[in-house]
Amino acid sequence: MLKGQVRCYSAPLDMAIPASKQRYIPTTGTYPQGFQVSGTHVGVKASNTRFPDLALIASDTPCSAAAVFTTNKFQAAPVQVSRKTLQSRKGDGIRAVVINSGCANAVTGKGGLEDAVQMGRKVDECSGVENDSSLVMSTGVIGQRLPISKILDRIPTAHSTLASTHEAWLNTARAICTTDTFPKLLSRTFSLPSSPDRTYRLAGMTKGAGMIHPNMATLLGVLCTDAAVEPAALQSILKHAVSRSFNSISIDGDTSTNDTIAVLANGAAGGETVRAPGASASADYTALQGVVTDFAQELSQLVVRDGEGATKFVTVRVRNSPDYESGRMIASTIARSPLVKTALYGKDANWGRILCAVGYTQGVAEGTVIPERTSVSFRPVDGSEVLKLLVNGEPETVDEQRASVILQNEDLEIEVDLGGGEQGAAGCGGEDAVYWFCDFSHEYVTINGDYRT
Amino acid sequence: MLKGQVRCYSAPLDMAIPASKQRYIPTTGTYPQGFQVSGTHVGVKASNTRFPDLALIASDTPCSAAAVFTTNKFQAAPVQVSRKTLQSRKGDGIRAVVINSGCANAVTGKGGLEDAVQMGRKVDECSGVENDSSLVMSTGVIGQRLPISKILDRIPTAHSTLASTHEAWLNTARAICTTDTFPKLLSRTFSLPSSPDRTYRLAGMTKGAGMIHPNMATLLGVLCTDAAVEPAALQSILKHAVSRSFNSISIDGDTSTNDTIAVLANGAAGGETVRAPGASASADYTALQGVVTDFAQELSQLVVRDGEGATKFVTVRVRNSPDYESGRMIASTIARSPLVKTALYGKDANWGRILCAVGYTQGVAEGTVIPERTSVSFRPVDGSEVLKLLVNGEPETVDEQRASVILQNEDLEIEVDLGGGEQGAAGCGGEDAVYWFCDFSHEYVTINGDYRT
Repeated sequence: MLKGQVRCYSAPLDMAIPASKQRYIPTTGTYPQGFQVSGTHVGVKASNTRFPDLALIASDTPCSAAAVFTTNKFQAAPVQVSRKTLQSRKGDGIRAVVINSGCANAVTGKGGLEDAVQMGRKVDECSGVENDSSLVMSTGVIGQRLPISKILDRIPTAHSTLASTHEAWLNTARAICTTDTFPKLLSRTFSLPSSPDRTYRLAGMTKGAGMIHPNMATLLGVLCTDAAVEPAALQSILKHAVSRSFNSISIDGDTSTNDTIAVLANGAAGGETVRAPGASASADYTALQGVVTDFAQELSQLVVRDGEGATKFVTVRVRNSPDYESGRMIASTIARSPLVKTALYGKDANWGRILCAVGYTQGVAEGTVIPERTSVSFRPVDGSEVLKLLVNGEPETVDEQRASVILQNEDLEIEVDLGGGEQGAAGCGGEDAVYWFCDFSHEYVTINGDYRT
Repeated sequence: MLKGQVRCYSAPLDMAIPASKQRYIPTTGTYPQGFQVSGTHVGVKASNTRFPDLALIASDTPCSAAAVFTTNKFQAAPVQVSRKTLQSRKGDGIRAVVINSGCANAVTGKGGLEDAVQMGRKVDECSGVENDSSLVMSTGVIGQRLPISKILDRIPTAHSTLASTHEAWLNTARAICTTDTFPKLLSRTFSLPSSPDRTYRLAGMTKGAGMIHPNMATLLGVLCTDAAVEPAALQSILKHAVSRSFNSISIDGDTSTNDTIAVLANGAAGGETVRAPGASASADYTALQGVVTDFAQELSQLVVRDGEGATKFVTVRVRNSPDYESGRMIASTIARSPLVKTALYGKDANWGRILCAVGYTQGVAEGTVIPERTSVSFRPVDGSEVLKLLVNGEPETVDEQRASVILQNEDLEIEVDLGGGEQGAAGCGGEDAVYWFCDFSHEYVTINGDYRT
């Protein structure tokens, strides 16, 4: 428990990465051309005397940009400001994203809005570009004003230390961390049908949906690519990708006031501009949508790997649902059930709790869940045979020994087959929906039950 | 943690009641005339070698009866059987309720249905009444068949030991316990307008919405009165009462396959029969509805007091909502938020998490939550001044010292005022909704993360 209690702000106090998480940290990367980044120490929280808490991601040239924001009705100042910036620029001409951790600048009234505007404008000023060219994000305690003059004072340093090295990207990913135990950074190359020999690059960082001590879960993410994409195409690709990635993960079911995922595309790699479907380049659009969705899934899974107190990484796949939305609601309900999550923590093959969550999911269409058509299985990650727990509403005799072995692994896949619901013939028809989630552990309670300090 | 781990079945192993819970156990009671009850040891779970796990509640004469069942799509066998019994008898002529703990008889196919029918019929046989005069309930592990012959063998003993003493009622309330740390039993007297000098009696028992180790949260309750009530009136009174009591509490947000609340009315106290509104006795109807609702609230609050691992009893009151249902959804969302629940466990005056839950509540009507009209306060249980945390969307400077003192208490009331939403004038208009809930503690995780044994 002590381990949890000292993890009250930012990454572990000494920034040491737990041994079990080392493998998620890249030792090298291929980063998009024309982007430079930095992570700088400000001390947004007075207790943070040395770790970076200001991230700057800047493009040498104007970018297309798109973002998806929290649906929470209490929207933090940076959310309101960034949304307005994107709207007034119609998703074009964005140069940078500036992010602080340590304070969410949420529920801070007019003063908070001014602070967010000032943060962005200071970056614009350093970059020598016109006002309102930067997006702003914050994550941390809510109901407290930013130490705005400290932040403004350090933005020139953040700007002058911009770099494009792997170390700079990693340091920037660290600067947005809060209760995260490791920085979350990925990069990859890809090509597009219109220009198969050209290499494009995509990099992204995110921070955990655990909550900043003490107030708020916040999920932030920034993706950068050197492909050229028109704003409308970028927004629609991002929306598609986020729905299947960041909006299909659950740590604790809470949705923050600050959640934001943004993507910048500066076109530095050349090639044709990717346009929305209907226009000429729709093969490129489809390809890029696939690339970004895969990438966002991989990135969002890192958030689950680092869920507060998490010891398990669980995929729940609801198959053969008569409609996608009902399947998704069932997957989400399983992922949020405290009973399922504590059973997984206890390594208990407790299919009763899974079934129970299927049964009480609200809002699913009539005829979706038919007990005699419902099956539940565990799919081991080692590729060994599926362990059937319930088949068409009838409990299987479970090999508890094997179940126990399967549950020793960090990773598990739960499969719920709805058999097509009322209308479905056995084994055929229907949509699949996937959610990724983690367990509920003692450490989760310790982290989130701490006094504010 | 050891304390939690040995609490894996039924009440604490030695049935010792924790000192802090002693005050919830009545030392005497006034029980409805013409009812007799017993708690008998069966050993439904082999590990239970001496504690009562079969409850029988019987009336000397036929009763009106009504019940509210789980909305979970996977309905346990006793739920299906009791529902059918009530339907076929049109809520009339019920003589008994028989309940076992230790096995939920859920997801047990046709065999399970037969077991549930047999349990009821064995009681009918012992009582010398016609078949299908008894309601049946079960609570415990799902996916396992009842040890039905053991149960049938012990029903004659349960019947022959029926009694109307306080000790018998308390022992019966114990027999339905699972992870409960204390039996939940209440009784009271009341009068009705049509017969002001006549004394009626109402008694009830319930069991915790903690989950039976290891599989399932189950909430069961039985209310008995010696007033005469026609079945339709009884059903509508129960529905009203349960919506404002058992359906307005949350331990962990999971809804079991077995949840059932039933009420029996045998008319043994004489007087006029209470009929549904529109008929002659509607003053009696209104009075009885008030009595039963108050009683059900008090009884359901005992369930929250004994939530698994609970250290706090929290009332959340959402005031001035434009409509009742939206207010209720917001109250329910706060009550289910792991972030709110862990903050309360940590005695942290974390209004940010409360506000966050208000903001992400799904399904509320447009215009319900207007940040500038939203206020959040703590109302201390000692009657001292309200502690304002947020007023019309602006954070207050919180006296942390006082907040800390308020949060030391087991009891707390959170008040969220929506100010009437978009349409409301400040401080006026709107509906109030109330929920009762408990915190999330380390012990909750321990209890629910245990291996099955």
